[in-house]
Amino acid sequence: MSNDHLTRELASFAANLKASDIPSDVMSRAEDLLVDWFGSAIAGKGSRPVEIITQFAQSMGSFDSSHAGPSEIVISRKSSSPFLAAMANAAASHVVEQDDVHNGSVFHPATVVFPPALACAQAIGASGEELLVAAVVGYEVGIRVGEFLGRSHYKVFHTTGTAGTFAAAAAVGRLLKLTPAQMLHAFGSAGTQSAGVWEFLRDAADSKQLHTAHAAATGLMSAYIAQAGFTGAEHILEGKQGLAAGMSSDADPSKLVDRLGSRWTLAETSFKYHSSCRHTHPAADALLHVMLTNKLKPSDIAKVETLVHQGAIDVLGPVTNPATVHQSKFSMGTVLALVAYYQFAGLQEFDAHFKDDAICLFRDRVTMTLDPEVDSAYPQRWIGKVKVHLNNGQILDGRVDEPKGDPGNTLSRAEITDKAMRLAAFSGGASPVEMSKAIDHLWNIRKQAKIGFLLQNN
Amino acid sequence: MSNDHLTRELASFAANLKASDIPSDVMSRAEDLLVDWFGSAIAGKGSRPVEIITQFAQSMGSFDSSHAGPSEIVISRKSSSPFLAAMANAAASHVVEQDDVHNGSVFHPATVVFPPALACAQAIGASGEELLVAAVVGYEVGIRVGEFLGRSHYKVFHTTGTAGTFAAAAAVGRLLKLTPAQMLHAFGSAGTQSAGVWEFLRDAADSKQLHTAHAAATGLMSAYIAQAGFTGAEHILEGKQGLAAGMSSDADPSKLVDRLGSRWTLAETSFKYHSSCRHTHPAADALLHVMLTNKLKPSDIAKVETLVHQGAIDVLGPVTNPATVHQSKFSMGTVLALVAYYQFAGLQEFDAHFKDDAICLFRDRVTMTLDPEVDSAYPQRWIGKVKVHLNNGQILDGRVDEPKGDPGNTLSRAEITDKAMRLAAFSGGASPVEMSKAIDHLWNIRKQAKIGFLLQNN
Repeated sequence: MSNDHLTRELASFAANLKASDIPSDVMSRAEDLLVDWFGSAIAGKGSRPVEIITQFAQSMGSFDSSHAGPSEIVISRKSSSPFLAAMANAAASHVVEQDDVHNGSVFHPATVVFPPALACAQAIGASGEELLVAAVVGYEVGIRVGEFLGRSHYKVFHTTGTAGTFAAAAAVGRLLKLTPAQMLHAFGSAGTQSAGVWEFLRDAADSKQLHTAHAAATGLMSAYIAQAGFTGAEHILEGKQGLAAGMSSDADPSKLVDRLGSRWTLAETSFKYHSSCRHTHPAADALLHVMLTNKLKPSDIAKVETLVHQGAIDVLGPVTNPATVHQSKFSMGTVLALVAYYQFAGLQEFDAHFKDDAICLFRDRVTMTLDPEVDSAYPQRWIGKVKVHLNNGQILDGRVDEPKGDPGNTLSRAEITDKAMRLAAFSGGASPVEMSKAIDHLWNIRKQAKIGFLLQNN
Repeated sequence: MSNDHLTRELASFAANLKASDIPSDVMSRAEDLLVDWFGSAIAGKGSRPVEIITQFAQSMGSFDSSHAGPSEIVISRKSSSPFLAAMANAAASHVVEQDDVHNGSVFHPATVVFPPALACAQAIGASGEELLVAAVVGYEVGIRVGEFLGRSHYKVFHTTGTAGTFAAAAAVGRLLKLTPAQMLHAFGSAGTQSAGVWEFLRDAADSKQLHTAHAAATGLMSAYIAQAGFTGAEHILEGKQGLAAGMSSDADPSKLVDRLGSRWTLAETSFKYHSSCRHTHPAADALLHVMLTNKLKPSDIAKVETLVHQGAIDVLGPVTNPATVHQSKFSMGTVLALVAYYQFAGLQEFDAHFKDDAICLFRDRVTMTLDPEVDSAYPQRWIGKVKVHLNNGQILDGRVDEPKGDPGNTLSRAEITDKAMRLAAFSGGASPVEMSKAIDHLWNIRKQAKIGFLLQNN
């Protein structure tokens, strides 16, 4: 493999990766991420932008009960083609902002990897193991492309949308057993469809759901047409008129192949635990730790001083009296109050309680103080520190070195199951019985010769 | 209308434009461009990349003879949904490089406007007049977005792919009768899916067909979801994290609304007449003029001196003994020889004759000389000048001030019809009888209450 063609090297890795090349803890983490993704996808049911894209995808495919498609649309219980099902499921997976994130690439892999991979796997009758290998390929490729495109790219472009086409193409390409040459062509077609800019944030517009839908669908298409002989640029990422030339000023080609086969970026991916801004998570976990260790009730606590990095003060500082559910997710006080009362700040807790008197009273007794140790460790480490002042005058120190969900403090399978169950209950996308059955199936996916549908079709 | 929101102004223009606002020569030119587009679309039949995308689009839609779709795929005589038919037809329309071009924006409008507009018009039962108004909207928006993105954009990005999403969204949005606010949202969704880089050129890869397919399909989708309430960024083009921020360094916002309603960029669009590099067209037309005026046969001619701009020498100079059909389209000598023998350098003439002895002999007697007048007029004007040396010692001067196909020297309807007939014969996409019938229908489209299919379905 020549060093001067890094995209080809990445494509060859993607085409050649086998289950036996992947450490068993990485395969097992892929299962964790799959179940976690499924919860986020189901949680999208009922969201306006998600329902609009789903309706569009369904109407453009002419699949109905008498004319079933091979791939499942999880929020509507309909079926469609892999292309249109991937589009709908990817739109659904990102909207409650509970899907996973890779810190170094600022990239959300699950939402652009699992929808196209599942849709293709269902259509071709792939095994559970093949799905997991494809997912690993999608994560390893997408995250490396995100790291390659760099911080300058992220200033304007939504990396999950742009690098997402590669992640989807790689995962689907692996399922379709593309040759290395075909995989490189698939990357070429994926990259020349890479899109998505942040401008929508200014208007709180719906584009984020479109970005994931677009990346999943166009990435899947890129792999399918590559299988049929469609060619793409061989240096789509690093070429003179490639993506980096157009969309980045600090692209680092070495990132594309960084320790391929020994560094598993999938295992670096964080789960989101609380449904709030990530800057609140370290302190929330530290408070919970103090309360559980000391068997405290909320009423025992007079005030909480959080010791934070400057970024937390910048982002959360302005939010003192949140008016909406969304805004309350950026209130350190609200998050800590919910954790104090419910041990968890999830979608339901925010929806039902962010304005409760008890929550608001607790909220107003939470402060933030810049802490030199926490600040200097950031962003490599997100340390959580709190000083909990009790009504009896005692002051208890709490600390966590990694917030819940980061690789060093990951979720247990019980917690992942529980999170997915909560997300389904929140949206009403599946009953507890249906959800349990589907999650059980997913925890055992490696043994399945064919994946089948996860939920009963309408 | 506030001047500081130019994208909104453009969206309002697109949403509000009525047939009665459009000068009749512009409407009539839209008909010309429609017929010209149809020939290019049919010409795509049999092209490998086009057939692959068409097959993909068909397989993802589950439309078959027992389950017909509302929109026509012209090269396969199948039907599908508007989304998938637009994708297939747009892939087909650009591949023989005979579709129209707008010089100032370096943008090919027909291939990204007519496929989505026709697909939507067929699906909703729109009238011929509504289709034409939608096409005008698509041209006016797409060309202005292309001009806005500027030359720096074109260095890396294929403007037909990127601005193409706006052209498609605008045309379809007009057919769907979007409100100005919905049209602005459609633009937001179109722009955040804008994609396509030139890197594929280096490998002669197939991406150009993917770019038009992608632009047509995603632009159409943007309009459909906007109708259903999906929102997009309001400043997608000129915003701080909009397209220009990510993809251009010389964007000029004033171009977006340049003389809206009085300048008709559709009427500035050039037809391609000969199937060769545009740099050969001025001299080819000048030679033809001399030969027709003086009733010359090729055997009367000893040599031809073409007087050209520097760009022609740069691009065409290296091609002295073309080895392939594609390369021969960049040979001034071959093009002039074909014109001398067949009065036209079309696809069939190149395919059948570029290596003929007579053509090669004539080719080797053609030279290029830099001409100060021609060079200084370029690129605003493409003047054609030749000195034709006859065997009898006479020297005849020939000149055309605009190459055939440019707005000041446009094609007659008979020539447009003839070109479309030739393109269909080249690909075998429709029989002469079928093609005549379809073209007749298109010349009378303004009177049609519903458009219907252009060709018989399989």
